Amino acid sequence: MAEPADPQRRAELARDAMYRHDYATQSLGMVIADIGPGRSTVTMTVRRDMLNGFGMCHGGLVTSLADTAFAFACNSHGEMTVAAGFDAEFVKAAKLGDRLTAEALERSQAGRLGVYDVTVRNQDGETVAYLRGRSYRMRGKSLIGD
Amino acid sequence: MAEPADPQRRAELARDAMYRHDYATQSLGMVIADIGPGRSTVTMTVRRDMLNGFGMCHGGLVTSLADTAFAFACNSHGEMTVAAGFDAEFVKAAKLGDRLTAEALERSQAGRLGVYDVTVRNQDGETVAYLRGRSYRMRGKSLIGD
Amino acid sequence: MAEPADPQRRAELARDAMYRHDYATQSLGMVIADIGPGRSTVTMTVRRDMLNGFGMCHGGLVTSLADTAFAFACNSHGEMTVAAGFDAEFVKAAKLGDRLTAEALERSQAGRLGVYDVTVRNQDGETVAYLRGRSYRMRGKSLIGD
Amino acid sequence: MAEPADPQRRAELARDAMYRHDYATQSLGMVIADIGPGRSTVTMTVRRDMLNGFGMCHGGLVTSLADTAFAFACNSHGEMTVAAGFDAEFVKAAKLGDRLTAEALERSQAGRLGVYDVTVRNQDGETVAYLRGRSYRMRGKSLIGD
Repeated sequence: MAEPADPQRRAELARDAMYRHDYATQSLGMVIADIGPGRSTVTMTVRRDMLNGFGMCHGGLVTSLADTAFAFACNSHGEMTVAAGFDAEFVKAAKLGDRLTAEALERSQAGRLGVYDVTVRNQDGETVAYLRGRSYRMRGKSLIGD
Repeated sequence: MAEPADPQRRAELARDAMYRHDYATQSLGMVIADIGPGRSTVTMTVRRDMLNGFGMCHGGLVTSLADTAFAFACNSHGEMTVAAGFDAEFVKAAKLGDRLTAEALERSQAGRLGVYDVTVRNQDGETVAYLRGRSYRMRGKSLIGD
Repeated sequence: MAEPADPQRRAELARDAMYRHDYATQSLGMVIADIGPGRSTVTMTVRRDMLNGFGMCHGGLVTSLADTAFAFACNSHGEMTVAAGFDAEFVKAAKLGDRLTAEALERSQAGRLGVYDVTVRNQDGETVAYLRGRSYRMRGKSLIGD
Repeated sequence: MAEPADPQRRAELARDAMYRHDYATQSLGMVIADIGPGRSTVTMTVRRDMLNGFGMCHGGLVTSLADTAFAFACNSHGEMTVAAGFDAEFVKAAKLGDRLTAEALERSQAGRLGVYDVTVRNQDGETVAYLRGRSYRMRGKSLIGD
């Protein structure tokens, strides 16, 4: 199967190829709510087993949500791309039952490096966290087609 | 109960107070292997439900481990302290079954802000990730005593 | 002199108070092109004495431009605020003679901590760098009035 | 002239090749005090024209010092390497006349990406800032030999 030329279709195929075996994303109850070229939206509801000792959603799990949105966005072009790192800022605690939405947008691509911005908001539209992701595109590894 | 004067004893009491209800850390199978003033060591074994679509440990979960070590280190003085943010660098993928160890060390305290460095290594001593955490100490909230 | 109630006027007075003795900004030829509540725009032209050994503008000086925009934006409310740190991403080299513009925007304020995004562009509108600044507001130190 | 096999000699030749035309580093009075494979030490004295409006050394110039140490360390292997970005934390203000020393150390190399840690201290050994640099090695561009 050849890779489709349509960028939106490529993004959807990349999502399908990634999500199928993404047990972490699945076990955390994340849903890939939207996908497109250079962008994605992922949702997660804060469960009891996501709370830290202060009764707030563990920062690492808020980050996991943002990182997932980043990963789907930076792989949306169909070439295998990994996270080299990211910077996260926590601006508001997330609580039990909060429905969080992470939106990731591509900011730049230069050579094999990319920059992505992710904003995590709660059900009231309040910003919970910002993540700035740095991606590294692997050479010649397609996620789709063969 | 008054707060103990001994820094090591305070660190242990803070750990106990935090861990008791830290369902995230517990459900991810993390163990607080060591605690002391300004430092902690936390371990986690990579399970199948922690893998991403590329068959590697989800970066957000590697970060969750590092963030937990950061949280226990920055709360080890007995005053409630939260993560303002962090910077993470991923240098080697973690695989199914890898036993990861995160060591967190305090680098500085200035006013209510702190800087902590966390290194995540696998069972062969290879570095998997670096995290630099930025903490914010809450005013007058003790974790221990009453 | 009391502090003015108008946010725009406060921002202008804060700019004046800061710029007067900001020898670094002046010696690097930076111009505070715009100021307002939670935002600023600063320009700088790349001089020969700003080039590194590869003939590009030194990354630290691109950062200095972005940091200045960040500083004027986070002090625009009239209370003394310092940079706790920032994350910088370089996406395109700046060359001799390039006219760079840094735009800083406030993203969040929570307690004494703030998050600011700065984008540095060249004369062709191409993005040179992104900076995400983390600010810390000092207690009870006004920049304006008395 | 072929590249020398000795890593220390390569580092010294890379330093010479970079420093010769590094007008920014020179005009800021920086001195490359030490160089070796994966490491460098750079000094700078805070001048009046480096002060910001609060009478402290401009954070961007503290960063410039740290970035220079990072640049010399990550180019010390003799292959052209650029800064993809960095994270900076400011923990203590630097004042007029302070003699600052930035020490950069390589933490990891994976493919074309590297991680470097820089600590900036004043003449009393107090830490002024931490910088974590992310490098990107260009393909097949030697700084030395021909």
